[in-house]
Formats: sequence, structure tokens, C-alpha cells
Amino acid sequence: MENSSRRNFVKTAAAAAMLPLASTATIDSKPKGMKNIFVHQVYFWLKNPNSTADRDKLVEGLKTLTKIKHIKTWHIGIPAGTSRDVIDGSFSISWLNTLKSRAAQDAYQIDPIHLAFVENYKHLWEKVVVYDSVDAPQ
Amino acid sequence: MENSSRRNFVKTAAAAAMLPLASTATIDSKPKGMKNIFVHQVYFWLKNPNSTADRDKLVEGLKTLTKIKHIKTWHIGIPAGTSRDVIDGSFSISWLNTLKSRAAQDAYQIDPIHLAFVENYKHLWEKVVVYDSVDAPQ
Repeated sequence: MENSSRRNFVKTAAAAAMLPLASTATIDSKPKGMKNIFVHQVYFWLKNPNSTADRDKLVEGLKTLTKIKHIKTWHIGIPAGTSRDVIDGSFSISWLNTLKSRAAQDAYQIDPIHLAFVENYKHLWEKVVVYDSVDAPQ
Repeated sequence: MENSSRRNFVKTAAAAAMLPLASTATIDSKPKGMKNIFVHQVYFWLKNPNSTADRDKLVEGLKTLTKIKHIKTWHIGIPAGTSRDVIDGSFSISWLNTLKSRAAQDAYQIDPIHLAFVENYKHLWEKVVVYDSVDAPQ
């Protein structure tokens, strides 16, 4: 097989193989809508916002949560440094995860890993704000 | 091939075929970390929070944004109905998108589709709060 045919074969095989999966893969660069999900977005404000050690400790704690099997996708973030008037960049750490349903989020809340996280790391933050979303009717 | 072998073959073929792609697919149920991304999360509070027509109009507007090529993944949400003390469920609509970089988000901001959205739909909301995140050091 010459190279371009081979590439096409690999692409086609990849696409075909992925069809049976409930996949969120971006095969091309088209924006991909996430549907039928529960979005759990948490913002933490540290008691010591200038402490890199406390920030890293909280990140360490959040990484333990990534083992909770109810989670589909996750992201641990810090403010991006953008600064328009509508932007709240005052938080220390963001914790985003998507789950398949409200039931999955309820199970996540009482998962022993989550309960241990709250117990072991809550001394680090002074404020938490949570936004939970499900698909808008469309 | 018996069924279990066939399943394993299909799984292996799928996994192998997906390797060359910069994929966010969830091959199994393991939580998937999103890395090297910019998370742009927007919450809108409508002027008429009880107006389903206004809510649907804003959703219509946000759907125009999903054509902006800089976006990798997106979600349009409404409050999930959860109600613990840390949860802010007062927003009308959430608009989440991920992009590959700060540069992509800057380009998104000045994309004609985005500018038209603000112009055509801003009469609907009374408050917007934006949280922009990039990967935390870990």
C-alpha cells in the first residue's frame, strides 16, 4: 500500500472501529456538542490564596477524585489570566467533571473517595461555589 | 471466533485504530482527564428568568456559537435542580466550551459569530459571569 492509501485505510478503520462506542472523540476539528450529560463545576477559594503549597495540596486532593468511576471527563484548572469585566478570576482552583446523569452525580457525592477528599482537604478552602447543569432543551 | 474473543478483538482493533488520533474518546469507563485545554464557562441570568421563550431564545443564540471553529467541545445547560448549600442554582443558562489554548479563546472572542451573538442576544440577560481556566500544574 502506498502511504496515502494506507493513511486513508487507517482513518477509515479508526472511524469504523469507533462507531460502536459511545465516543466523544473529535475525528475532525468540528466543535463537538456534549449531550445527555451532567456537568458538575466547582470553584474553590483557598484560605491562603497566595500559597502555592496549599494550591498544590488541593490539586493533589482533586486528583484522588479522578478515580471515581462515575466520572466521564474531568479537568483541574487555575484561572486563565483573562480579565474582561464579566470575568471572575478570583478563584484558586476549578474542578470540572461530566457524568452521565443526575444519578451518577448523586453516587459521586457519597462515593467514599469523595467523602475522604472533603474530610482531608476542606481545611484548605474558605469558599466553594458549585454549578450543576444538565442539557438545556433544544 | 466465539463471542468473547470477538469482543476482545473488536476492543483491541478499536483501541489500536484510535491510537494515531488526538482523541478524547472514552474506550472504557475510566474517567478521562482533559489536558492542555482552555475551559471557558459562562453563566447567564436572564432579565425574565421565568420566561421559557427568553430561555429558548438564548439557547438559540448559543447554538450559533457552536459553529465557531476554535471550539473543541461545548455544552449548553440549565440548572440541574441540585440544592446543597454550596450550590448556586440561580443562573438561567450555562455555556461551557473547551478550546485548545488561550490564543484560540482570544480568536473566539473576536469571531464575527461571537460578536453577532452578543449584539443580537444581550438584551435577554441581566448578568453574565465568566470563569476561564487552564490546566493546573500537576
